[in-house]
Amino acid sequence: MKYSQLYKDTLFENIIPFWEKNSLDRTYGGYFTCLTQTGEVYDTDKFMWLQGRQAWMFSMLYNNVAPEPRWLDIARSGVDFIREHGMDKDGNIYFSTTRDGRPLVEPYNIFSDCFAAMAFAQYSRAAGDRSFKTLARNTYFNIIEKRDNPKGRYEKSTGARPLKGFSLPMILSNLVLELEDVLGSEDVEMTIDHSVREVMQVFLRERSGIVYEFVHKDHSLSDSFEGRLLNPGHGIEAMWFMLDIAARRNDVELREKATRTILNILEYSWDEKYGGIFYFMDAKGHPLQQLEWDQKLWWVHLETLVALAKAYEQTQNDAIWQWYEKVHHYTWSHFPDPARGEWFGYLNRQGQPLLTLKGGKWKGCFHVPRAMYQCWKTFERIENQRQD
Amino acid sequence: MKYSQLYKDTLFENIIPFWEKNSLDRTYGGYFTCLTQTGEVYDTDKFMWLQGRQAWMFSMLYNNVAPEPRWLDIARSGVDFIREHGMDKDGNIYFSTTRDGRPLVEPYNIFSDCFAAMAFAQYSRAAGDRSFKTLARNTYFNIIEKRDNPKGRYEKSTGARPLKGFSLPMILSNLVLELEDVLGSEDVEMTIDHSVREVMQVFLRERSGIVYEFVHKDHSLSDSFEGRLLNPGHGIEAMWFMLDIAARRNDVELREKATRTILNILEYSWDEKYGGIFYFMDAKGHPLQQLEWDQKLWWVHLETLVALAKAYEQTQNDAIWQWYEKVHHYTWSHFPDPARGEWFGYLNRQGQPLLTLKGGKWKGCFHVPRAMYQCWKTFERIENQRQD
Repeated sequence: MKYSQLYKDTLFENIIPFWEKNSLDRTYGGYFTCLTQTGEVYDTDKFMWLQGRQAWMFSMLYNNVAPEPRWLDIARSGVDFIREHGMDKDGNIYFSTTRDGRPLVEPYNIFSDCFAAMAFAQYSRAAGDRSFKTLARNTYFNIIEKRDNPKGRYEKSTGARPLKGFSLPMILSNLVLELEDVLGSEDVEMTIDHSVREVMQVFLRERSGIVYEFVHKDHSLSDSFEGRLLNPGHGIEAMWFMLDIAARRNDVELREKATRTILNILEYSWDEKYGGIFYFMDAKGHPLQQLEWDQKLWWVHLETLVALAKAYEQTQNDAIWQWYEKVHHYTWSHFPDPARGEWFGYLNRQGQPLLTLKGGKWKGCFHVPRAMYQCWKTFERIENQRQD
Repeated sequence: MKYSQLYKDTLFENIIPFWEKNSLDRTYGGYFTCLTQTGEVYDTDKFMWLQGRQAWMFSMLYNNVAPEPRWLDIARSGVDFIREHGMDKDGNIYFSTTRDGRPLVEPYNIFSDCFAAMAFAQYSRAAGDRSFKTLARNTYFNIIEKRDNPKGRYEKSTGARPLKGFSLPMILSNLVLELEDVLGSEDVEMTIDHSVREVMQVFLRERSGIVYEFVHKDHSLSDSFEGRLLNPGHGIEAMWFMLDIAARRNDVELREKATRTILNILEYSWDEKYGGIFYFMDAKGHPLQQLEWDQKLWWVHLETLVALAKAYEQTQNDAIWQWYEKVHHYTWSHFPDPARGEWFGYLNRQGQPLLTLKGGKWKGCFHVPRAMYQCWKTFERIENQRQD
């Protein structure tokens, strides 16, 4: 079977049906994301990260694949839930609510806002509902306002070691592309410039060729737990955001540098003993704080497949293709659950499921279907190139 | 070899020398706790939990074993560091500082205060320094003042699901015994009464016979991630605090209930496949948030040995003795590092070291030597009973 077909079939015959069947809260709206191996709801709390991500997913399918009315209904259920229950009076997004929408955890995490903005923008385009366009715009500018102190009053650092994190510039580089018809093109290009500079010149380090999670505000490296932290999947995911920008701008240099970085990170973080990509590493090889460092996570491997497919499409680089095949083999032989559908999220170092959940506090209807969509479309283009 | 001898020899020929040799910061005072397998310092940040615990440890040895001047010097270095650098102007204890004592992480964690109070009290007794007695007292009353909102302004819960945690009443039951000559005996007995009630009637559940980490403020169970969380090592550690109180008060009922609870928790949380005690479990068997749930941690196993030894001393219960031998065998064959001294802290489910550190952000000079001391003394009494 062609890879494009594998990804497309898995998306529409396995992944999307699983979430359509199991995740919809028909009483209070929004989605259940805590689903057991068989799809049963084991917890009803609603985490705004995952509400936003699922609403975005179904809006995106509606916009880019087919205007299925039920996909729009599903998307609406999520954006309505966030708008009605997931925002405080200043437009900040709560981290979580109860099933019926009472706020549980305060807006301490700016990524809730990012995923809500993505959802609002895609949904407004799908439904032609301008009120969500305004909401997307307001949410975006609220993020920009908070970007220098994203945790607000929940920040526990004293400021004695001022670090800046990789996550926010990375996510902004993807978010503004999502918000292109919401923001002016000047805002979009400016934010892209800024993000590319931060990702490729600040967090990607010349000497090692890999991406760090935190650096000092003066851009020097910090010899501390945070400063030594590497999150290989995160770095690789950022590289496919960079490849999208490189393609958009026809920026050959960015394309080459992102491609090299994918190879560097993979060589650094591949587990030679058991296969798979480590979750966290320490840049100096010191012991980590993260006890889960050696685990193999679904999203890390899926984002890597997306990055490798896009890099191959743009470069036809042999080393990229060899890595694609290697990661493809590991990922497809370890993560899918042939018995019950959807994918396992958390494997131990040896590659066995550590938790058999299909969804939880952090895993929802997002990384699996987004990667299926991205790889499907990318392999379609690659296969067409080959036929030319 | 007699068990009392094994624990005593390990304490004084292996564990204490390791920390004396590797952890002392002779430039800025206080202790390095981030030590590799061989004892090299890999990070110099100072975590007040561990500064307090190590200062307590050396003060306790000075008070209870022998008045070694170097132990007092080591203890002083820690309490001085905390007093000079580890407290904000209101007497709250920072979570961490840089090596030279600049505050890094704000006082969001009340256990820093608990371990500082323990250290100040033991040290004041060792050194005869009344200023630390006052400091212990003030720190204790500050804890009591903060107990209903221990995270202060860093609390992220909205209050929509008010839960209370097991940790604080548990630790207070041990802390007040440490502070006996600092507080009035009325305060001590009152706090003991309160803690025993909370631990044995609120968090220990009648139906299951095991200890929960969080319950609703009205004492009902909460069907949420927090409400379903079990931390078996934590529950077992609390039971040896209860056994100390039972011995002090000659409370037969408390002794029997604590002993039964140790057995219940062990039966619930022993890994039948690979041996060892799981780190976290879900009371309903649902997937956990904690990706490290199946790991085997040093402190869990050491606290269990202390609890079983004390329960056996007090009850001569056969089931307790069988469990002691089983946990002893697992613990002594997996955690000690025969090549480099001291103990590994973090094993994977299969029992292999996941991190080879001897100390880090959470592991310092505390659980290993405290358990060695407690087991040494308890087995001395058990062996004397047997000779009678």
